[in-house]
Amino acid sequence: MTETRVTAEPGVPQVVIVREFRAPRELLFRAYTEPDLVPRWLGPANLTLTVNQLDPRHGGRWRWTHYDTNGRGYAFHGLYHGTPTPERIVQTYEFDRQPGVVYLNTITFEERDGITTLTQNTVFFTVEDRDLYVRDGMERGIRASMEQLDALVTRMAEEA
Amino acid sequence: MTETRVTAEPGVPQVVIVREFRAPRELLFRAYTEPDLVPRWLGPANLTLTVNQLDPRHGGRWRWTHYDTNGRGYAFHGLYHGTPTPERIVQTYEFDRQPGVVYLNTITFEERDGITTLTQNTVFFTVEDRDLYVRDGMERGIRASMEQLDALVTRMAEEA
Repeated sequence: MTETRVTAEPGVPQVVIVREFRAPRELLFRAYTEPDLVPRWLGPANLTLTVNQLDPRHGGRWRWTHYDTNGRGYAFHGLYHGTPTPERIVQTYEFDRQPGVVYLNTITFEERDGITTLTQNTVFFTVEDRDLYVRDGMERGIRASMEQLDALVTRMAEEA
Repeated sequence: MTETRVTAEPGVPQVVIVREFRAPRELLFRAYTEPDLVPRWLGPANLTLTVNQLDPRHGGRWRWTHYDTNGRGYAFHGLYHGTPTPERIVQTYEFDRQPGVVYLNTITFEERDGITTLTQNTVFFTVEDRDLYVRDGMERGIRASMEQLDALVTRMAEEA
């Protein structure tokens, strides 16, 4: 089983996540950009995701909301910088409950010999913003998401 | 005369610029968001700026081109995340000659006793991208810009 590597160095306002998938990057790209597929893997298992908006082109907006079992929603939103491609997606992010804490995220997909390496690089304006992101369970949520994403794209690859 | 302080720490993909102005922040905000005012201060003195697009609202696009004396153009573009206000402007950036090197920039204006402190915080995906930005004379261009901006808003404040 592949492992999700998370790097968050002290004093650097950045988080880098790397994981390998046994699937072509085209499937990973679809999992990130198709509104029907995103809820099947994004977020921890105890939350339900609703994609409110997903317009994968330069200047397009995205918004999704994680709901807990009490119906409490946690909404994130932002913009796509550059039109997303199977090589790369660049997005701004803002959590509605932490307005003003904006960060920039890029996801790259590199495919070699049937293995796709996903790298998510997130940069923040301050180390405090980064620590807030990590503290709020983002890292845990990301590890869970990566496992769910792996299950999804593996199934999609088998069915193809 | 106030000084522009530039911080670019080793190993951190970030540049922070701080400068004080003897002008209300409303004038600084106008200087950043009005297409007629931006060319009056932005960029080194040996380049001429053309604002191609400037749509200061959430998801709005901006593009401007610096021309040298030979007519050679250096174009930058990006998006506004959140609608710019006199408190804060957040923009994505990309230089047409370095496609793929995307960075996020925030400018905050804090006014106290007639003095506005401008802080520009720029974060990059890699230290190499940051070093490219600094190497290409951005820091020098920013210092020159800040002096021109000071002259502009001082004159606007006097005329008001």
